[in-house]
Amino acid sequence: MSAGAPHSQKIRTQVAIVGAGPAGLILSHLLADAGVESIIIDQRSRDEIESTIRAGILEQGTVDLLTAIDPNSRVNTVGNRHDGIELRFQSEGHRIDFPGLVGRSVWLYPQHEVLKDMLRLRLDAGQDLRFGVTATRVEGVETDTPCVVATTADGEEITIEAEFVVGADGSRSVVRPAVTGSSTGGFFREYPFAWFGILTEAPPSADELIYSNSPNGFALISQRSPEVQRMYFQCDPDADPNALSEDEIWETLQARVPGTALKEGRIFQRDVLRFRSFVAHELRRGRAALVGDAAHTVPPTGAKGMNLAVADVVLLARALRSLFSENDERLIDGYAEQASRRIWKAQHFSWWMTSMLHSTPDASDFDRHRQIGELHSVVESDAGRTYLAEAYTGWPID
Amino acid sequence: MSAGAPHSQKIRTQVAIVGAGPAGLILSHLLADAGVESIIIDQRSRDEIESTIRAGILEQGTVDLLTAIDPNSRVNTVGNRHDGIELRFQSEGHRIDFPGLVGRSVWLYPQHEVLKDMLRLRLDAGQDLRFGVTATRVEGVETDTPCVVATTADGEEITIEAEFVVGADGSRSVVRPAVTGSSTGGFFREYPFAWFGILTEAPPSADELIYSNSPNGFALISQRSPEVQRMYFQCDPDADPNALSEDEIWETLQARVPGTALKEGRIFQRDVLRFRSFVAHELRRGRAALVGDAAHTVPPTGAKGMNLAVADVVLLARALRSLFSENDERLIDGYAEQASRRIWKAQHFSWWMTSMLHSTPDASDFDRHRQIGELHSVVESDAGRTYLAEAYTGWPID
Repeated sequence: MSAGAPHSQKIRTQVAIVGAGPAGLILSHLLADAGVESIIIDQRSRDEIESTIRAGILEQGTVDLLTAIDPNSRVNTVGNRHDGIELRFQSEGHRIDFPGLVGRSVWLYPQHEVLKDMLRLRLDAGQDLRFGVTATRVEGVETDTPCVVATTADGEEITIEAEFVVGADGSRSVVRPAVTGSSTGGFFREYPFAWFGILTEAPPSADELIYSNSPNGFALISQRSPEVQRMYFQCDPDADPNALSEDEIWETLQARVPGTALKEGRIFQRDVLRFRSFVAHELRRGRAALVGDAAHTVPPTGAKGMNLAVADVVLLARALRSLFSENDERLIDGYAEQASRRIWKAQHFSWWMTSMLHSTPDASDFDRHRQIGELHSVVESDAGRTYLAEAYTGWPID
Repeated sequence: MSAGAPHSQKIRTQVAIVGAGPAGLILSHLLADAGVESIIIDQRSRDEIESTIRAGILEQGTVDLLTAIDPNSRVNTVGNRHDGIELRFQSEGHRIDFPGLVGRSVWLYPQHEVLKDMLRLRLDAGQDLRFGVTATRVEGVETDTPCVVATTADGEEITIEAEFVVGADGSRSVVRPAVTGSSTGGFFREYPFAWFGILTEAPPSADELIYSNSPNGFALISQRSPEVQRMYFQCDPDADPNALSEDEIWETLQARVPGTALKEGRIFQRDVLRFRSFVAHELRRGRAALVGDAAHTVPPTGAKGMNLAVADVVLLARALRSLFSENDERLIDGYAEQASRRIWKAQHFSWWMTSMLHSTPDASDFDRHRQIGELHSVVESDAGRTYLAEAYTGWPID
């Protein structure tokens, strides 16, 4: 880079994708498959992206898509198929048998593994994918030539002139204001609790996830690998992850999963995950659309986060193919409404699982008994268990 | 009655039942069937009891029981079988097909008709049933000889010496303090709205009940007979039933049931029904137990009120038969726990239907969208519709 005034570079593409998370990467694949060219930019380095630890429950439909994208996908070898979860309350476990109820399963496969797979695939396929490039603004979304203005790590300004811009840039999306008219414009819900999460060096305490409603609050026993386990317990949103000793963490967890002796190990990571529900007021304006966390965030209890992002990009890729190949605007005009239906069902499911399983600080004794009544209603009914399993394993994408 | 000091009369029976509502009357029949003698007292006159207008959705199991009690029961001739309800939201109706989903139906048969039938049956069978007798207190429930002290309309005190006392005396139960230790001891939930109900001289506007979620609030279109209809709309709990003109009532109702032209007629009754969830802390102590509204009240949205009373007395009759015929206390010792499971499932269902269909004054836009997401989830899923239909038509009594 030469000295003097900052350089400015213009590049052209059909679709400018901001964000190289699962949504952006999968979208670029689907677009390439449809003969539509795209450029992805992300402010992070490849290393940063590949080391962002996120939970990873993949719906059957997400796994089917990843397998269609790459028949040798590691989701089928490194990932673990889970054929059920357990709901535990009043010290009793109740299994929700996914294949038996709905003929589908879920896969435990952490998001950063999906990212490693997709980054390699897209780069091998020659995708224009630029790391360390920070989008600063989006212009002209109401015209046929919207553009993304961005800055490289070197301070160079680049302008991506596109025919469509996609915000796949997470909950602090830079694209969002161009779509919604403001950076915050959306529907919110806060929850009066968070999850205290740990990673521990220990063998699995259970084969499948245990969602436990206990008088002391919620806990989730999850797995990561034969040697590493992920566990969570409900905590105050302002909790300091370093305030508890390892003994106190195990004691808290164990008290919330009566009936299962947890296998303890060294705790090598701890974090506090805040709960927040959000849906942007608008998902598309003119030649720009939002997908994934840029469009919505869900509390983790329903395990919907990444799956919802995948459902968005499947719909959007279909709409963009139709727009570019056939000059047909009907699907893109319907994108927001169609995506919204699934988003609000997923928001409901996430809220439902959360409210059914957690203790709310201001819950009355009536609420507590009603919650147990609800759990009984669900687990004692084939229909109740099926209704839950359908949502957990994922509704088909229309 | 002679002059001077009030008379005091002692009478003996096996089971003293306070309250000649559906719970008390059906219990006396089931006990008689099992060879157990009972006396029922009620502070109201027969006329008053027979003219207490209450809603009347009877579950399949309730109708089966009434038919077993009287094969010629008018529920099968005057009552109307309903094979479904409609959930309406976003101006679209979605039918829940009960027989198709769960092989059961419900019957529309007002509670006062059940009362007329049962009063006639019990009196014809020689039941000791005393009207205008007001229970004042219950004593000795921790002994084998509990008693009910009551006062006749003439001011005479009577003491019913029994082996068991049943509080079937409604939400202001006099028996309850003897069981729970206080007149209010229970789990409560209040709701920030009520139902404005009308009876109108008009033909039916729909064949089945319409539960409508609208941006203006909830409405329920129900039926009573070919000439008289019952309709409700969500209102403020402090609403004055006389503050609205007939035109205003019709306008309010019509705005909440878009898509159906309501058939208007003279409104000859109007009332405001407050919503309240309640479950007594204890359902049984020693030789006394609570059934029906004395034990619990539910909001009307789930149509569970009378059915839950019937489920209580089926369990209690079985327990008392076992106690008196076989001197076996196990069932009566388990009565509270067994009844509670159904009660809390019904409380949950009533809360669920209420929260899914009503507008809450402090609901955010997020909540409103989530509610619509939930309604979509339920009606678009066989399992969701089945889960709702199972609860609405009634779970089997264990």
